[in-house]
Amino acid sequence: MTQPLVLGIDIGGTNTSFGVVNRRGEIIAKGSMPTTGHDTVEDYFTAMKQVLAPLIDGFGKENINGVGIGAPNGNFFTGEIVFAPNLPWRGVIPVVKTVGEALGLKTTLTNDANAAAIGEMMYGAAKGMKDFILVTLGTGVGSGFVANGQMIYGHDGFAGELGHVIAVRDGRKCGCGRSGCLEAYASATGIVRTANEWLDQRNTDTELRANKGKITAKLIHEAAAKGDLFALELFDFTAKILGQTLADMVAITSPEAIIFFGGLAQAGDLLLKPVHKYMEENMLNIFQNKVLLLQSALPDADAAILGASALAW
Amino acid sequence: MTQPLVLGIDIGGTNTSFGVVNRRGEIIAKGSMPTTGHDTVEDYFTAMKQVLAPLIDGFGKENINGVGIGAPNGNFFTGEIVFAPNLPWRGVIPVVKTVGEALGLKTTLTNDANAAAIGEMMYGAAKGMKDFILVTLGTGVGSGFVANGQMIYGHDGFAGELGHVIAVRDGRKCGCGRSGCLEAYASATGIVRTANEWLDQRNTDTELRANKGKITAKLIHEAAAKGDLFALELFDFTAKILGQTLADMVAITSPEAIIFFGGLAQAGDLLLKPVHKYMEENMLNIFQNKVLLLQSALPDADAAILGASALAW
Repeated sequence: MTQPLVLGIDIGGTNTSFGVVNRRGEIIAKGSMPTTGHDTVEDYFTAMKQVLAPLIDGFGKENINGVGIGAPNGNFFTGEIVFAPNLPWRGVIPVVKTVGEALGLKTTLTNDANAAAIGEMMYGAAKGMKDFILVTLGTGVGSGFVANGQMIYGHDGFAGELGHVIAVRDGRKCGCGRSGCLEAYASATGIVRTANEWLDQRNTDTELRANKGKITAKLIHEAAAKGDLFALELFDFTAKILGQTLADMVAITSPEAIIFFGGLAQAGDLLLKPVHKYMEENMLNIFQNKVLLLQSALPDADAAILGASALAW
Repeated sequence: MTQPLVLGIDIGGTNTSFGVVNRRGEIIAKGSMPTTGHDTVEDYFTAMKQVLAPLIDGFGKENINGVGIGAPNGNFFTGEIVFAPNLPWRGVIPVVKTVGEALGLKTTLTNDANAAAIGEMMYGAAKGMKDFILVTLGTGVGSGFVANGQMIYGHDGFAGELGHVIAVRDGRKCGCGRSGCLEAYASATGIVRTANEWLDQRNTDTELRANKGKITAKLIHEAAAKGDLFALELFDFTAKILGQTLADMVAITSPEAIIFFGGLAQAGDLLLKPVHKYMEENMLNIFQNKVLLLQSALPDADAAILGASALAW
């Protein structure tokens, strides 16, 4: 007796991980390969085929329902990765066409945040929900908005750029060239940036000072967990900006829950409690005390594979 | 030969208008009654039945597919009007239950902005569009967000409160009790408020000064159309705040078009040209030069009835 399976592929800046997943969201085989180190994108896809073809044959191609791929700037409609700043290749990469033809399986692509949202809906914290927002707090801030049980891709497939909503008018410069984007504050890199700025401006005593220049979101999280006031204030500041912006997002899609995913979300209540407080303080009264803030329920290491795989059902 | 018909009812603060509408969006009979002047909400509904029952009988109840009602704070899910500040009644009004039972027809309710969005999709500027935003610029700012061809009602039916997105952090006081809402700037009342503030602060020569205290959005529009620099600057200021906020909304739902409806939208290009400019200036590069800004294509006087009627199909 065979069970229906899908193949999930997560194309990250450094590694590409993949797994064969069943309906219950169990990964029954997995592996990874480097994303970098290939001379051309064609070489990368050739290497991918060499790894994946035997895996697929092992389960029997007829048992694999399809391939789901999550990638930065992956476009669901065109099947292309479009100008992804964190990947080694420039321009437009026809992922669905190339991988689909190489593997001979129906292939679907979306960006990593949308993949995570679909993963949460299939196997995670959003099971049974029809209206929610998934927010990824990693190197950048990404998001997937689900309404009426469907992912909002928008007219061109690029919807859900929460990270580039202007959170602070005329604020900090963002990698996108504009100023004050949420991503410049509420990402793992954003909170580190705040930490370094404050260390320059203040004499506050904090264990983070010893790591100046090498601070990470994880170090801030660890310091805050030990009660370091400077680190706690960093979370409070970051949470205020995130909470204010989320209050505005709630006014638009009125979600049942907002689910947090990614490195900075690992901080859990240290981040989510103040985010919740500021979101409620800034919210229109009809939305108050309704929206759940949840952490991702996808197992950490496998979340990206599960998210990508969920696309293929 | 009979054609399928629906009944559209628009409950406004002063008048309730209604019409019998065919599939092509033609109003083949219409009328209105006062919303105010009834001792109780029950009296209002009794008066409504006295007016509508003969109209329905005239066309034959069997030919009327249903009743669509647009009302401020109308909730699609519960069929209730919930705490509408501009209606004469307080609290929760079970509109769908009351009207549905009184008329013996399937009845659907939504807020006026959502009704307008559905109207544009059925008969107007959004025909054939699956992803768009309708923005009403009237006494307040309302909105209807459509994604994947479906209205976004959100988990509780209250989605689409664009007017209460914070456009100016710590800005002007809004009727909702918070500060800096888009509605406090970009509505017909918002632009009048700006005009009055500026007239107090400046000595600029403008034909509006003669009307101080009695300024309306229409007067500002007329002055701007004649080239009054003060009035043009009012449009520019209002457009900047609206354009900035819309750029953020585009990042979330990536619409094909944004359609403007309501009193202030009558200003047409005087408003929409600068809105477009500021929206583009503030937009993430992947969204630039893609989103159409359009004026409502529903005939003015009948737009609300058509919007409400579209719900009933």
